[in-house]
Amino acid sequence: MTGMAGLEPKHFRWQVEDRVAIVRLDRPERKNPLTFESYAELRDTFRALPYADDVAAVVFASNGGNFCSGGDVHDIIGPLVDMDMKGLLAFTRMTGDLVKAMLNCGKPIVAAVDGISAGAGAIIPMASDIRFGTPGSKTAFLFTRVGLAGCDMGACAILPRIIGQGRAAELLYTGRSMSGEEGLAWGYFNALHGPDAVEAEAIAFARKLAAGPTFAHGITKTQLNQEWSMSLEQAIEAEAQAQAICMQTVDFERAYRAFVAKEKPVFEGD
Amino acid sequence: MTGMAGLEPKHFRWQVEDRVAIVRLDRPERKNPLTFESYAELRDTFRALPYADDVAAVVFASNGGNFCSGGDVHDIIGPLVDMDMKGLLAFTRMTGDLVKAMLNCGKPIVAAVDGISAGAGAIIPMASDIRFGTPGSKTAFLFTRVGLAGCDMGACAILPRIIGQGRAAELLYTGRSMSGEEGLAWGYFNALHGPDAVEAEAIAFARKLAAGPTFAHGITKTQLNQEWSMSLEQAIEAEAQAQAICMQTVDFERAYRAFVAKEKPVFEGD
Amino acid sequence: MTGMAGLEPKHFRWQVEDRVAIVRLDRPERKNPLTFESYAELRDTFRALPYADDVAAVVFASNGGNFCSGGDVHDIIGPLVDMDMKGLLAFTRMTGDLVKAMLNCGKPIVAAVDGISAGAGAIIPMASDIRFGTPGSKTAFLFTRVGLAGCDMGACAILPRIIGQGRAAELLYTGRSMSGEEGLAWGYFNALHGPDAVEAEAIAFARKLAAGPTFAHGITKTQLNQEWSMSLEQAIEAEAQAQAICMQTVDFERAYRAFVAKEKPVFEGD
Repeated sequence: MTGMAGLEPKHFRWQVEDRVAIVRLDRPERKNPLTFESYAELRDTFRALPYADDVAAVVFASNGGNFCSGGDVHDIIGPLVDMDMKGLLAFTRMTGDLVKAMLNCGKPIVAAVDGISAGAGAIIPMASDIRFGTPGSKTAFLFTRVGLAGCDMGACAILPRIIGQGRAAELLYTGRSMSGEEGLAWGYFNALHGPDAVEAEAIAFARKLAAGPTFAHGITKTQLNQEWSMSLEQAIEAEAQAQAICMQTVDFERAYRAFVAKEKPVFEGD
Repeated sequence: MTGMAGLEPKHFRWQVEDRVAIVRLDRPERKNPLTFESYAELRDTFRALPYADDVAAVVFASNGGNFCSGGDVHDIIGPLVDMDMKGLLAFTRMTGDLVKAMLNCGKPIVAAVDGISAGAGAIIPMASDIRFGTPGSKTAFLFTRVGLAGCDMGACAILPRIIGQGRAAELLYTGRSMSGEEGLAWGYFNALHGPDAVEAEAIAFARKLAAGPTFAHGITKTQLNQEWSMSLEQAIEAEAQAQAICMQTVDFERAYRAFVAKEKPVFEGD
Repeated sequence: MTGMAGLEPKHFRWQVEDRVAIVRLDRPERKNPLTFESYAELRDTFRALPYADDVAAVVFASNGGNFCSGGDVHDIIGPLVDMDMKGLLAFTRMTGDLVKAMLNCGKPIVAAVDGISAGAGAIIPMASDIRFGTPGSKTAFLFTRVGLAGCDMGACAILPRIIGQGRAAELLYTGRSMSGEEGLAWGYFNALHGPDAVEAEAIAFARKLAAGPTFAHGITKTQLNQEWSMSLEQAIEAEAQAQAICMQTVDFERAYRAFVAKEKPVFEGD
């Protein structure tokens, strides 16, 4: 296992406190657009996370009042317009690989979304496990506005599973903004907090998860993402196996011992 | 490619304005029931739509204050009672083929639902992409009331994906009406409008879609319908391929050029 | 076919009235925890239900103000801590088999949830078809609190299909209680009733189902549970076949004859 607390990425900010990694894009003056380089470095970072013992949960935070404005028009969309199919597919697969890496990173991800969350900048919270928004946050899957389809980085698969097929269809066909209140009512946001509080709330939530049975959390994440494409009978068998594994962890025994002793369990993730 | 603006169907009404086709059943004095003939002609019409260049979006509208009362009791249910299994399966496959044709027609469908929307007359909006209702609309998947199961024309697959398994189960087991307000709160209706406004709002919405990147909209529709049965990883790869295709459209370049020129893009669907 | 009205289970209570079976756990002084024995006997009972002609619907009720507190800490969790993998998997498969038996019992299950519904005691309502709660009910998928993963007895597959992926993730990662009001707003509960009324309402609802076309209800249940893992096209074909079968029932003809005679149909389940 390798540690990631000391990571010094070039294209985004990264800090680790109490085993919670806090990621944020870092061009706040332009609402934090993504570039080819930040996409690739984020993908590689989330791919490394399963092997990092010193990170137990992740917060993907906003910066300067905005989450992320998506792919930079000049740095990304311009070059794409002139690219051949081989290059285009390499790009769309790279962006999809970021989502796959987030789904497979083994740690819960809590998104703290303030301000603009647009295009690929809406996909990142969508692909997180827990989403906190602000009343003023604006989430737009605006691919249609640049002439593209709504199917970007898994949106046509994941968004309907969060907010239902009808609401997802409207957002993906029109590219319109979903308000914070809509996101809360529709089950997209787990909670709304003020702009000054949303990051602290997300970190507090992530810390609680990091203090929990983190091996089991990793299994929860895997099953939540994999069971959509299983039959219910297959899923029940998959869970029987997965939970039997968790019953062999020390954390399960710790919880039992604490209960018997009328104490609060202290989990260690093994 | 063939044009469909001049279509003159025998068993329902059809008009095309600004590349938006408006369909409506036409027996308002009986709340617009379906017959064997209108089922078949609707199926054939939606099957022809992928090849029609002069239609970019569809509105399925109400008529005389009601959407559709479902299969006509005398014209359809009576004959079914005396039919053998070969005939019954031919019928249920024909009705299912209408839903398949709607899912595969390549153009977004906006349902404008006023008054009664019952049985197969509830399935048509359910199988549409966007649904506008009225406060007084009554949507009833009432198959159980005629002694049948809730699984008609895809209802047990599609309705839970829109409103969730628990609410769908109640509607399908009981056949009770869902009110407009319930439909809005549950994500079935995208919006409610008054009876005098709902059709105009649906047409305005469809016109906006028709003025958008219609090739990409067709891909969005395909992916929204196909990705429910993919794993998330398969869906992300499918989207990488689908979006790479869209990045080779002229509409994608048009959007970029317009952005650079600080203009609004004019999409042409190629 | 065998009758189950006279069943006298050892580890839970059972009564049948008007073809509605009412099940309830029976250790109210400890909030009705499950034991190895009650799990197994419940599984066997639901497995026998498809063959019982004298039960047409099931109510899973609370007892003494609580539904079920889950697996008993002393009777179940203690022994599990010392068990080997073979024994653990035998246990998790047995609990999963209870859910499979509920899904496959062929009769709609209505849960009447008052008070505590925790752990496996939350899974039972989740795996039911219809859920009535009380304003004070507390539903907690609290597996994480005992060091385990959220994937227990199908929770990672079924709960997101009821309330959406984001809300399910929060409940399963944190183990926190869902209130009655949340459950209603999220589509988990079909309705809330007062503690004094919830069981009577559930029984009245189940009686209506039992007086309906019960053969068709069994098909509805099968399709609602199986079609999540079909493509929409596969589901539409499956429904064409399933509904054609239902069109050969006498209940379908009864409904038609009653309609023609302007009477209310009396269904008999064949």
